[in-house]
Amino acid sequence: MAQRPLVTLTTDFGLNDHFVGTVKGVILSIAPEAEIVDVCHAVRSFDILDGALAIASAYSYFPPGTVHMVVVDPGVGSSRRPIVATTEQHYFVAPDNGVLSLIYAREERLRVHHVTSEHYFLSPVSQTFHARDIFAPVAAYLARGVPAGKLGEQISDFVRFQMPQPKQINPGILRGVVLKVDHFGNLITNLTPQDAPALFQPAAVVKILVGGKAVSEIHTSYSEGAPGEVFGILGSMGYLEIAANRGSAAQQLAAVKGTDVDVITEAAAGA
Amino acid sequence: MAQRPLVTLTTDFGLNDHFVGTVKGVILSIAPEAEIVDVCHAVRSFDILDGALAIASAYSYFPPGTVHMVVVDPGVGSSRRPIVATTEQHYFVAPDNGVLSLIYAREERLRVHHVTSEHYFLSPVSQTFHARDIFAPVAAYLARGVPAGKLGEQISDFVRFQMPQPKQINPGILRGVVLKVDHFGNLITNLTPQDAPALFQPAAVVKILVGGKAVSEIHTSYSEGAPGEVFGILGSMGYLEIAANRGSAAQQLAAVKGTDVDVITEAAAGA
Amino acid sequence: MAQRPLVTLTTDFGLNDHFVGTVKGVILSIAPEAEIVDVCHAVRSFDILDGALAIASAYSYFPPGTVHMVVVDPGVGSSRRPIVATTEQHYFVAPDNGVLSLIYAREERLRVHHVTSEHYFLSPVSQTFHARDIFAPVAAYLARGVPAGKLGEQISDFVRFQMPQPKQINPGILRGVVLKVDHFGNLITNLTPQDAPALFQPAAVVKILVGGKAVSEIHTSYSEGAPGEVFGILGSMGYLEIAANRGSAAQQLAAVKGTDVDVITEAAAGA
Repeated sequence: MAQRPLVTLTTDFGLNDHFVGTVKGVILSIAPEAEIVDVCHAVRSFDILDGALAIASAYSYFPPGTVHMVVVDPGVGSSRRPIVATTEQHYFVAPDNGVLSLIYAREERLRVHHVTSEHYFLSPVSQTFHARDIFAPVAAYLARGVPAGKLGEQISDFVRFQMPQPKQINPGILRGVVLKVDHFGNLITNLTPQDAPALFQPAAVVKILVGGKAVSEIHTSYSEGAPGEVFGILGSMGYLEIAANRGSAAQQLAAVKGTDVDVITEAAAGA
Repeated sequence: MAQRPLVTLTTDFGLNDHFVGTVKGVILSIAPEAEIVDVCHAVRSFDILDGALAIASAYSYFPPGTVHMVVVDPGVGSSRRPIVATTEQHYFVAPDNGVLSLIYAREERLRVHHVTSEHYFLSPVSQTFHARDIFAPVAAYLARGVPAGKLGEQISDFVRFQMPQPKQINPGILRGVVLKVDHFGNLITNLTPQDAPALFQPAAVVKILVGGKAVSEIHTSYSEGAPGEVFGILGSMGYLEIAANRGSAAQQLAAVKGTDVDVITEAAAGA
Repeated sequence: MAQRPLVTLTTDFGLNDHFVGTVKGVILSIAPEAEIVDVCHAVRSFDILDGALAIASAYSYFPPGTVHMVVVDPGVGSSRRPIVATTEQHYFVAPDNGVLSLIYAREERLRVHHVTSEHYFLSPVSQTFHARDIFAPVAAYLARGVPAGKLGEQISDFVRFQMPQPKQINPGILRGVVLKVDHFGNLITNLTPQDAPALFQPAAVVKILVGGKAVSEIHTSYSEGAPGEVFGILGSMGYLEIAANRGSAAQQLAAVKGTDVDVITEAAAGA
């Protein structure tokens, strides 16, 4: 059986309106055999970094050939460009505002096209709903096999931003930040095992402060945490997470997106 | 490849319960090859107008032959009738309470059948979940190709209501209303370019008051708005919307569904 | 046309993150022809009984052969076992923590396997996201036709808990409990017609107290309720529900999950 073309959706549209349904109608009108999967529609409104994180966490788990439509688009109707990024295994359709930055950072073989072939768009194109009028049809035509090169010229000046990086603020203190609070109240930080290798050593003597409040230690599973304990853990997205067993670390620490996360290494702790 | 039958769902069931999943199970038990797409399950509870707006905004973007199941049904278990409406390109399955009124208003060729053939229902039929026991099976049989005429008699006395219409409250003031607040806090009004042509002319001298508060001017895209500015825009549903760039107009104007929207034309403004 | 394999998902993951999308990507990578249906992702965090209720309310409406993945998993990363339960018509993939208890209670022919064949898992397996790394691949392989017996040994000591049962606290008072509040504010109790047959007799003289507050009487449809009235009704899940017509019984009675529901029978009322 031939594989159905797969289209994923990542947006800040929420699920309170007809927006997502309408986008799916457009895709299925053009590519009736497509299978559409929601990655997430709860990206924070207009928050490009939050959208970048959502698609970066999910895309590699989809089969080769998947078309990922990613629309967090505060500049809809302005001159920002619609683009298609092609990696070794996936396609991405998005506004050129940096929402694919984490894809660019992770994928070595990458081509980006500025989509200008308007005959692939709905007509007329509104100024307020390009997901419906531009991105959905483009995703659908890609799913049908239209090559990215037919959609417009290749470009190299696409917009990319740097993820917030941890900073060594003195020899013993590495300062990261909470990137996101998940549904369970876990705090996803921007600290990886590469940034702070000591954290994930057995019997590491490391102290973590979240917004100035101390976290107990590193556990390897949520269920190791005692009731009321807030601890660190290597999360499923590859970052240090701050978590609580059957509770919300965000609530217990009064932490939010943007709260500082300091890793204080043995040397400093012993100083 | 033959096109799969497509069924869309629009309800006020929310996503906190098993309701939507159960409905899909019923549909797929009867029409295993059907593709099911959620239009919206966040219609305000028991709000028939809100449901009418949701399906009217989305249905025309789906391919011909799509079956749209629309269930906002405060009268479940009462004598209100289950109906199937057939337009030139689409099918609609719904309770006969007016939730299809905007479809009736937009579609010229229309037939409505009262669904009475109980052998198409689940058995027994509960008194509280007709979406599962009546509407889902009927949608599934339509998707399988059962003609509407087999489901019951054609009727002409189906329930329809008028959308709230803008009123000319004096020669210079046209009064509309906020129909809906979307996920981003945009206010969708019931004013169209036909109602207030002056609004969308270049260099129009027009004043808009929302709940008595002035809106700056008409922009053609969200990104034209300055920070903090609240402005008018022709929205993707074809109505005047009141919006803010990367912000919530609803919050900034303290406006809700039902708030008055006055368009004061040049003559009046100059008077 | 051969039926596509069907996989349903019931979790406490919410829809604010990439979790559900990622799980679907894993399933479709292994079983590209699978159809995936969300039953519910709003199970209360870590609430195994709430998950048990959700899947028990929905599963029987899906076609034979459906694979149901049920992940409410506070013990992720601990020694709790991943299992597959096979009933006459369905497959269930879940952690062995009791979340399938209501399935066990309803299905007579039942086999449960402890899943140990790690070559069916993603590699490496994280300690925090077994839905992605273990349950989704196992569900996908079942959907592809891998027999449960290939996944590990059959076991009989799987975890099951008792649903909270109504108690006869004196000859005239049967005490149940609110199991769940649904999207509309209806209170789903654990009282069935078998528990309290008098409730659903015509002209029954029965009194119901919810958290000590009296409920009017039993109606057979929501629309029979007068404005402001709070009444009992036989709900679509087969339990006594406490409801209001176009209103929230939960709000009107200030009732929550866990609130007592007393049924006072004629004898007692007349005593």
